Amino acid sequence: MSISAKLVKELRDKTTAGMMDCKKALTQTNGDLEKAVDYLRKKGIQSASSKFGRKASNGLIASYIHLNGKVGVLLEINCETDFVAKTPEFNELAKNITLQIAASNPKYIKREEVPEEVVSKEKEVYYGQAENLNKPQKVLDNIVEGKLNKYFKEICLLEQEYIREPEKTVNQLVLEAIAKLKENIIVKRFARFKLGE
Amino acid sequence: MSISAKLVKELRDKTTAGMMDCKKALTQTNGDLEKAVDYLRKKGIQSASSKFGRKASNGLIASYIHLNGKVGVLLEINCETDFVAKTPEFNELAKNITLQIAASNPKYIKREEVPEEVVSKEKEVYYGQAENLNKPQKVLDNIVEGKLNKYFKEICLLEQEYIREPEKTVNQLVLEAIAKLKENIIVKRFARFKLGE
Repeated sequence: MSISAKLVKELRDKTTAGMMDCKKALTQTNGDLEKAVDYLRKKGIQSASSKFGRKASNGLIASYIHLNGKVGVLLEINCETDFVAKTPEFNELAKNITLQIAASNPKYIKREEVPEEVVSKEKEVYYGQAENLNKPQKVLDNIVEGKLNKYFKEICLLEQEYIREPEKTVNQLVLEAIAKLKENIIVKRFARFKLGE
Repeated sequence: MSISAKLVKELRDKTTAGMMDCKKALTQTNGDLEKAVDYLRKKGIQSASSKFGRKASNGLIASYIHLNGKVGVLLEINCETDFVAKTPEFNELAKNITLQIAASNPKYIKREEVPEEVVSKEKEVYYGQAENLNKPQKVLDNIVEGKLNKYFKEICLLEQEYIREPEKTVNQLVLEAIAKLKENIIVKRFARFKLGE
């Protein structure tokens, strides 16, 4: 089918992807704008992955104070160049992540940061809970692994559901920004203070 | 001498102290407004001390981002009531302390928080430096103590010179706020992120 220039422009505005990518996405999805966005997103996430490992020493320190000053968040988020650090898209990403931290109270950025003793203790609790089920060890192991994954999804920022679009994780949000801004982006560290905590 | 009501009002506006205190201060200082402020400040600091130890579980989380997003500060500062937490004076104090932290990069709030091993290591260095002076032990001890005090003044927020009025310490700034707001105030914790640090 033939794709109108207007539709291509609409998709470009929506995704900031290149013209040829947008044309291809719309051709592949028979001119369905929503599906084309998904198509690009998947493609974007793939191409984003190739940016991992690149040095990201620029970026921003961002903060967010909950209206009444009862909760506050400080965040360091890195990208590769000062140019990208100053884009509205990068600033919006930083802002959205501070909001996420304020609302969802993560303890770590990713599961690799959770101390081994914390993981062991969680496992112990889960095995204790599963013990009475009288199931084979392999089934118990699966149950415990499932619970552990759920635990990581709660306490690790990048694995959390993104509060504004719960169908994606915070990590996906970052990957989308990587695809859009074409630089590696790293959530480096954060602090979250709750009054009287 | 007789003190005019206008002068008393001026002093009250300037210090928010009570009418009788202002009258007394002006009488004691022969109507010299500046000296009366000092008089009240000294008095205030004394009366402020009596507020120590009172429970301070209210307050604010405040943040400050250096214009270009390269340095950020998050602060918890406590007072006794939500009423005081909402006053412009308390908010200004919080703001000024975040500015102080951004500019002067303290590592701790007070010297009691500096880990014993850090203090020992500093002392060792200072004794090493003083060793060649060929002085009696007592003199060496004094030199080391002097250097240690200087070190605390650099790394402990409350002992630092207040950047906007270097003739007072940050602790004095807090004491003045205690005297003015008539509640105990505690600088509870802070985080300071510098980009790429």
